[in-house]
Amino acid sequence: MRKILLLTSALALALVASRALGSETAAGGAQHASSIAPVLMELVILLLAAKLGGDVFERLGQPAVLGELLFGVVLGNLQLVGYDQLLFLKSEPALELLAEIGVILLLFEVGLESNVRDMISVGPSSMLVAVLGVIAPTILGLGSSFWFHPDESIYLHLFVGATLCATSVGITARVLQDLKQLQTREARIVLGAAVIDDVLGLIVLATCTGVIAAASGSGPGVSLGMLGGIVGKALAFVLGAITLGYFLSPIILRLAARFRVQGMLLTTGLLLCFLLAYLAQAVGLAPIVGAFAAGLIIEDRHYEAFSARGTPKLHDLLNPLVIFLVPLFFVRMGLEVDLSTLGNVSVLGFAVVLTIAAIVGKQVCSLGVLERGLDRLSIGFGMIPRGEVGLIFANIGATLTIKGERVIGPEAFSAVVIMVMVTTLVTPPLLRWSLARPRRRKPAPAEAAG
Amino acid sequence: MRKILLLTSALALALVASRALGSETAAGGAQHASSIAPVLMELVILLLAAKLGGDVFERLGQPAVLGELLFGVVLGNLQLVGYDQLLFLKSEPALELLAEIGVILLLFEVGLESNVRDMISVGPSSMLVAVLGVIAPTILGLGSSFWFHPDESIYLHLFVGATLCATSVGITARVLQDLKQLQTREARIVLGAAVIDDVLGLIVLATCTGVIAAASGSGPGVSLGMLGGIVGKALAFVLGAITLGYFLSPIILRLAARFRVQGMLLTTGLLLCFLLAYLAQAVGLAPIVGAFAAGLIIEDRHYEAFSARGTPKLHDLLNPLVIFLVPLFFVRMGLEVDLSTLGNVSVLGFAVVLTIAAIVGKQVCSLGVLERGLDRLSIGFGMIPRGEVGLIFANIGATLTIKGERVIGPEAFSAVVIMVMVTTLVTPPLLRWSLARPRRRKPAPAEAAG
Repeated sequence: MRKILLLTSALALALVASRALGSETAAGGAQHASSIAPVLMELVILLLAAKLGGDVFERLGQPAVLGELLFGVVLGNLQLVGYDQLLFLKSEPALELLAEIGVILLLFEVGLESNVRDMISVGPSSMLVAVLGVIAPTILGLGSSFWFHPDESIYLHLFVGATLCATSVGITARVLQDLKQLQTREARIVLGAAVIDDVLGLIVLATCTGVIAAASGSGPGVSLGMLGGIVGKALAFVLGAITLGYFLSPIILRLAARFRVQGMLLTTGLLLCFLLAYLAQAVGLAPIVGAFAAGLIIEDRHYEAFSARGTPKLHDLLNPLVIFLVPLFFVRMGLEVDLSTLGNVSVLGFAVVLTIAAIVGKQVCSLGVLERGLDRLSIGFGMIPRGEVGLIFANIGATLTIKGERVIGPEAFSAVVIMVMVTTLVTPPLLRWSLARPRRRKPAPAEAAG
Repeated sequence: MRKILLLTSALALALVASRALGSETAAGGAQHASSIAPVLMELVILLLAAKLGGDVFERLGQPAVLGELLFGVVLGNLQLVGYDQLLFLKSEPALELLAEIGVILLLFEVGLESNVRDMISVGPSSMLVAVLGVIAPTILGLGSSFWFHPDESIYLHLFVGATLCATSVGITARVLQDLKQLQTREARIVLGAAVIDDVLGLIVLATCTGVIAAASGSGPGVSLGMLGGIVGKALAFVLGAITLGYFLSPIILRLAARFRVQGMLLTTGLLLCFLLAYLAQAVGLAPIVGAFAAGLIIEDRHYEAFSARGTPKLHDLLNPLVIFLVPLFFVRMGLEVDLSTLGNVSVLGFAVVLTIAAIVGKQVCSLGVLERGLDRLSIGFGMIPRGEVGLIFANIGATLTIKGERVIGPEAFSAVVIMVMVTTLVTPPLLRWSLARPRRRKPAPAEAAG
């Protein structure tokens, strides 16, 4: 009861604060030539919402990230109760930029907490988990779409299936970090699988868009050579970045240690992170894959020259950036959810079936775990969230047309967005519950996670 | 000789790197839907340029910030030697946003390094320094403008005079920080005077624009009431923020310590900083004034509850953000300099006279120092840079018109920009030299400045 009171009062406080601040923005924005004032106010609102939400959920025994998401949903849907002063938060490119840099740095930090040797040791399991986690949800999604809309084109079903195959490692990584479980073997399998998943999901997406482009007569069609090219590029990037980077990282960091300016360790880390994130996107992968690879190849022993001078660990230097920017990403993800789509019954039905397909489909992943005694349920749960990857897929689907008609219409799009939202929202409590269960074998002791 | 070789090779390295990276951007940018890839590459180029420039200038015995500025000038003027692949860096809103957040955080960090009691103890000197530093350069600037362009309207002269009164505390604070001199009495007088200067400069600017608006018949004219309103608002903000904040800061930080989420100290600090920066801009002041005030009111003893739990000091938590974002501001300031305007002889002549007026005018400041035995030369030098404040003034002047004609034409604008650039470039070496001179009385021992 006290907790509910606390929740309500914190929410009310957030609303009052944002109302007072929101009207300030409207008054002050026009007065000055420079454009930084509204961004400052938006940062205040989002950081306040993130911390209030995080605190409420920590007190309820849930991971902080869920509170950030849900307070974001609340901020983004206040127009439903007649308050439309905060709608500007949704379409703010500055916040989007900061949030995107935030999620890149989060994956860099996650990468720093594991290393290449660990990744190789979980490699076969990760690979099998990822492959099963792409095949099963895609088939289930394609089937549900066909069952609900038997008269629609096969391309819709294909695309809906594709949106189900992606895994968004951001939420899972954050929950594991909140619970200080990033060092466990289960965590490494899930994170490794999510990286492979991104590559596989990309191939599925490329195939779907290729088939649709061929069907609408506007594209070059799908050739085996084109598919081979995509797969080759992606594999070459991930393997190349990791093997080359693993040997180059100590050399680059030794060189950086010779610079006489302050802040060289953090700057060098950021340079590697941004460069690999950029290269990942240049070959068509998500930038977070590159950021994760950058974290993977840097190990503490690579920068002993800095440590000898008393420079803190790279992970500790990075942490304040993560504290500032990452909550912006999760509050913004909540902001993007449009609760009004929940009013349409047929959309809701399709969304429910799709969500079940998405959750059940990823549980097949646990069959791919080769080692005995591991927490298979947590691995399956960790693969559930579609997050921003699912949203990116749905966005691409909404822009594709065959003979003038959108492949994914507004209703299917809403259903996909609900699926993305629910899979993202259920993961933290599910994962929290499954990791807290008593098990036959305990995971390796967790190290402090910042 | 070895140093010059080093300088040249580092420059060449930066150019080769940026060329290779720049062409990657062009190739990769169009390929992907998301907009983060070009920003990532720009961050890589700017951070690389900042650190290479900083290292070269540290080796030459100059402050790192001068290297960041000059490497920015080089990157921004490569089209003069026929290389126009990097022009996109100049007009990138993402970099501008990150740089602006950077300078806000820099002034917050500078504010954290001093406190209200110290500011009050240097108050009378700061006030006199600021007043003299506004009056003398404005008169000298007005005179030079009249001398060079006797046939032009009085409004041009007024505005040119106004651009000379501003002080950009960013460069001086950074140089003092690089030299670990932020804790000296001289540094506090200069920083205090710069804050007062911003308020006074604003009044001068408001008066000029008011007079011009009255002359062109489009504005409400200048009334004593309007002037009084501007002055009152500005004074109320600075005094109100500092006195109210000084009492509220410990309460807010004690409340924040009760939150159960991680990162609350840094987030609370950032919230106070962004809120005051926002409010400063809302009352028409520069946001950095608010950020500086936020730093001023937070003292280490206000967050003992965090320190007891082992949380690092706020200053140390903030430092990584400063390391990441602040170099972007200074490289970008260099990028904005257009060296091609130096080709016009009459522009150059006016620029030289204006620059001399700007430098000599601020030396009058040293007469305002009431204490004996202080380093008056360094105080005068510290007030020289016009930096972004001068550029903001010049920009406003360029947008004002009287009967269809621009108050500040393109040539006067170029001269003002050159003045801003030279005053900003000469400050670090002048300050470095003056602080290193043997003096009768040594300044207070400097504490480590992060």
